[in-house]
Amino acid sequence: MLEEIRQQPAALERTLESEAASVEAMRLRLTAKRPRYIVLAARGTSDNAAQFARYLIEITTGIPVSLAAPSIYTLYRSELQLQDALVVAVSQSGESTDINMVLESAARAGAQTVAITNEAESTMAKLAQEVILVRAGRELSVAATKTYTGQLMAFYLLAYALGAKISLDHLRRIPASAHAALGLYDQVREAAVPYRFMEHAVVVGRGINYANVFEFALKMMETCYVIAERFSIADFHHGPIAMLERDFPVFLFAPPGVAGESATGLLEKARSLHAETLVITDESNAAMASVTERKLVLKNIAHDDSLPDDLFTPIPYIVPAQMFAACLAEQKGLDPDAPRTLSKVTKTI
Amino acid sequence: MLEEIRQQPAALERTLESEAASVEAMRLRLTAKRPRYIVLAARGTSDNAAQFARYLIEITTGIPVSLAAPSIYTLYRSELQLQDALVVAVSQSGESTDINMVLESAARAGAQTVAITNEAESTMAKLAQEVILVRAGRELSVAATKTYTGQLMAFYLLAYALGAKISLDHLRRIPASAHAALGLYDQVREAAVPYRFMEHAVVVGRGINYANVFEFALKMMETCYVIAERFSIADFHHGPIAMLERDFPVFLFAPPGVAGESATGLLEKARSLHAETLVITDESNAAMASVTERKLVLKNIAHDDSLPDDLFTPIPYIVPAQMFAACLAEQKGLDPDAPRTLSKVTKTI
Repeated sequence: MLEEIRQQPAALERTLESEAASVEAMRLRLTAKRPRYIVLAARGTSDNAAQFARYLIEITTGIPVSLAAPSIYTLYRSELQLQDALVVAVSQSGESTDINMVLESAARAGAQTVAITNEAESTMAKLAQEVILVRAGRELSVAATKTYTGQLMAFYLLAYALGAKISLDHLRRIPASAHAALGLYDQVREAAVPYRFMEHAVVVGRGINYANVFEFALKMMETCYVIAERFSIADFHHGPIAMLERDFPVFLFAPPGVAGESATGLLEKARSLHAETLVITDESNAAMASVTERKLVLKNIAHDDSLPDDLFTPIPYIVPAQMFAACLAEQKGLDPDAPRTLSKVTKTI
Repeated sequence: MLEEIRQQPAALERTLESEAASVEAMRLRLTAKRPRYIVLAARGTSDNAAQFARYLIEITTGIPVSLAAPSIYTLYRSELQLQDALVVAVSQSGESTDINMVLESAARAGAQTVAITNEAESTMAKLAQEVILVRAGRELSVAATKTYTGQLMAFYLLAYALGAKISLDHLRRIPASAHAALGLYDQVREAAVPYRFMEHAVVVGRGINYANVFEFALKMMETCYVIAERFSIADFHHGPIAMLERDFPVFLFAPPGVAGESATGLLEKARSLHAETLVITDESNAAMASVTERKLVLKNIAHDDSLPDDLFTPIPYIVPAQMFAACLAEQKGLDPDAPRTLSKVTKTI
């Protein structure tokens, strides 16, 4: 798992450079036939990447995005009116039976279709009209890491293809920021030590990092067997905050920008309840970076004044979280590459 | 809380009968101008009702449904292309600032708009073109119960207004099935006893009862401070199942119909890991009802052969779950009507 975490900068660069030309061509096609709305279909880690994409695409293109409930296609056998939609299927292996059924249903309805997968020869890649390949290389660990960030990169490319005002040059800075995040390894390893006996936790965040909340929680569930709840900061105030008590572990993504204020508010609330918070932030969020609690502070993430400050934070921000899960598994004497009960390819219907 | 749980059959009947005439008129308008897709905006318990609605509406009308991320409107100030959409806002009080901002943005974009709220005089009711009023009466408990089932009933009415092949007569059977569910009270109270020291749990289900998974977990978090994770059965296999171990408490919604097979599969898996399962099912799911584990078995829920078997199960199925949360809070010596840290109206932006 740690080795694959470290492969991410190279994998991101490879995905970006290999796909750039075909994405330029896709941009011509998709801006000529702009979809009225977008449906994303995925499970597990890929569904977390899809959660990121719904924020990214809605913010940068204004096209409404829905996360599909695959059961509606597979169990209830509903045929939705998708003729004006772009349906995007996401799967590392490209062999998730249920996600491929959504793609087939979309094709029957006359939707435009895109596949985001690691496998060029997969069923999914063959079913879709357009493919964005994640060039992460074979992922051996059951806990997906480089696949997740690769899917995030693929979604930046898709947003670009849909006419978002981001440039490929913006994206070219991402591998370096992921590389810089890897430099926190020693700090992360030390930060994990006091969590040796943690059995449960809450992960919170908001906006474009909401997907990272799900992904960090999933990594802790899969590799450390920690019962990790996940909430948007806004929803957390609608009930679940009642669970917080002295020493309750809270993990908080606190990027600069529009989600910053609510992160600060939650941090203050958690402190007043004497919960134990660990914050992932970067130098540009000076208010957070100066907080005295446990924290992992990334280097300043380059951004563009015309775009939201946190738009390019999700990839570097998940890196310390991935390393934390791997280090915590080690602390707990668990093998993060072989979680009990799990297998790499999950075929649900 | 228990008193409000018991008011549900009467509240459901009142909502149905008071709104029936206006919903018939709405059906004429909405079937004449059928939306291309639907966006639902809500927080907390109302968002759980919206999760139900996405299944109900997609299954019965084929119109794609998206659950809005309010932050995109409130924090990122994005203006989405919603001119072909029907945007439905849901809030008990009708005074959720962020949800009302979504409604305003939708109106600016030229969308059709509907409000589902308890308060006829609320900001939300005034902002929307169409209103379905939940006639639950004042809800005093912080933990929403009759509001949730009232919103579910409002969504059945909305599905009908959108042309779903359900009749008001189908809906008229629901208050009686909720009433019958209340008859399980003594069993529920006894079933809660062994959970006195439960600190964490997982709630699972699938399909149209997926919303109940969120709602049951939320009630246990709010009123019992139990760390209650919630998953669709399909997603649970993609990682979180690694958390399961001997004695891990699992709560499972197991209605008859299409979601039944995966519920049985999960139950078998959980048993093989010696987890502790409690199943909510009904007499028509004979395979489940005969299982020897802990279970709460409702009376057969009337259904129609032309519709999915589980279509009318969510309202009666949540009733024992609500009672369980209230009884467990009592077991734990907590006051479910006054959860720590919470207030009834939450105004996030």
